Amino acid sequence: MSASASQVRLYELALDNGRSASPFVWRIRYALAHKGIAFETVYLGFTDIPTVFGGRFKTVPILEHGAMVLAESWDIAEYLERAFPGPLLFNTPAELALVRFTDAWFFNEVLKKMFRLYVKDVHDAARPSDRPYFRESREKNMKGKTLEGFTSDRATHLPAVRSALAPLRAHLLKFPFLGGGTPNFADYIALGGFYWAACAATLPLLQRDDTLRDWLERGFNLYGGIAKDPGVAPLFE
Amino acid sequence: MSASASQVRLYELALDNGRSASPFVWRIRYALAHKGIAFETVYLGFTDIPTVFGGRFKTVPILEHGAMVLAESWDIAEYLERAFPGPLLFNTPAELALVRFTDAWFFNEVLKKMFRLYVKDVHDAARPSDRPYFRESREKNMKGKTLEGFTSDRATHLPAVRSALAPLRAHLLKFPFLGGGTPNFADYIALGGFYWAACAATLPLLQRDDTLRDWLERGFNLYGGIAKDPGVAPLFE
Repeated sequence: MSASASQVRLYELALDNGRSASPFVWRIRYALAHKGIAFETVYLGFTDIPTVFGGRFKTVPILEHGAMVLAESWDIAEYLERAFPGPLLFNTPAELALVRFTDAWFFNEVLKKMFRLYVKDVHDAARPSDRPYFRESREKNMKGKTLEGFTSDRATHLPAVRSALAPLRAHLLKFPFLGGGTPNFADYIALGGFYWAACAATLPLLQRDDTLRDWLERGFNLYGGIAKDPGVAPLFE
Repeated sequence: MSASASQVRLYELALDNGRSASPFVWRIRYALAHKGIAFETVYLGFTDIPTVFGGRFKTVPILEHGAMVLAESWDIAEYLERAFPGPLLFNTPAELALVRFTDAWFFNEVLKKMFRLYVKDVHDAARPSDRPYFRESREKNMKGKTLEGFTSDRATHLPAVRSALAPLRAHLLKFPFLGGGTPNFADYIALGGFYWAACAATLPLLQRDDTLRDWLERGFNLYGGIAKDPGVAPLFE
């Protein structure tokens, strides 16, 4: 295998502001940093995804490593763990299982609510050429509403997402990270969700004095400031 | 240290039906079984707790091991891990941290809602001598309502607790236990909550076809049927 064939390429989602903004891409960016794996980014807009790899994948992240190409963030994380040395993402099978549970919690209780709050903001932040596709695909599930109609009362949904974060706040009274003394993939999953929101949100997710701020700042500053742009400011009132 | 001094005694909460029913006691019963530690039970009613150890503890479980006496289920679990050989409860610091997170989730999102549903059932199942104390201490936090008034519309709260269990259901599509292929303390925490409910509930918590049934049956049957009485039947419509 030549050096270039073993290059790692991460296909990410680009917004019009140049930011890579997908909660699922970001957990992989964190995982690559955790394991110290160099990679190059290929930016795709929403409508570019079907144009690569013969339309084989519907979503990003897509990871290319030599002849190996795969999507789905968990498949990618487990592949990185098998194929590369460096610090483990999962030290035991039980740790992996509990990270999976944390993912199920975050997706069901938090991320779905964030999608509801920020779907129009993501539309507005997408590349202009992606917006018609994004609108049409999302409005299909809005029972006849437009993005504008669906989000017009979105501030009323803030209390539900804020209170859904109670278990995370309770945990962070005891530990600096979800993973304990050091961050693990559970942190990367949650941080990726918050980073995605910070990239597009025009409505602050959290109250000014939310105790999640310290963990978010620690997390966005990992690995030399991996998520320092745009930082936590857009998340807070 | 004599043999009798190193005996392990677990002070548990007894209902009038003879069952030991506290979610916090039950996670320790499971932990003792996990580590293969023999112990003897001392049954206490609610009003007996202040009469032992000079009133030093307000809650059960209390664990006595030689000269060591301690309460609080997490302190007990970490003590058992340090003081006894046998299978580890926590194989890595990250696993311990994520079990703690799972506990924070279960307590905030599920157990609090179960307390609300079953507070009168627990009163009715308590020893008659404990009931006046139990009523008074619980009604203090019910803004002038009686146990009966507080729970009269309790069925309307079932949908919230059922939907709060979505992350657990999603996880159990992938793994037989919260801890993965084998149960760990995260399972014991959640199973202890369900066991407690099964001991007193007069309103089924779960719908007949809830996919949690298989995990509950597996969990109640661990360690030779540790929680087979009363089994899962009272939990299901």
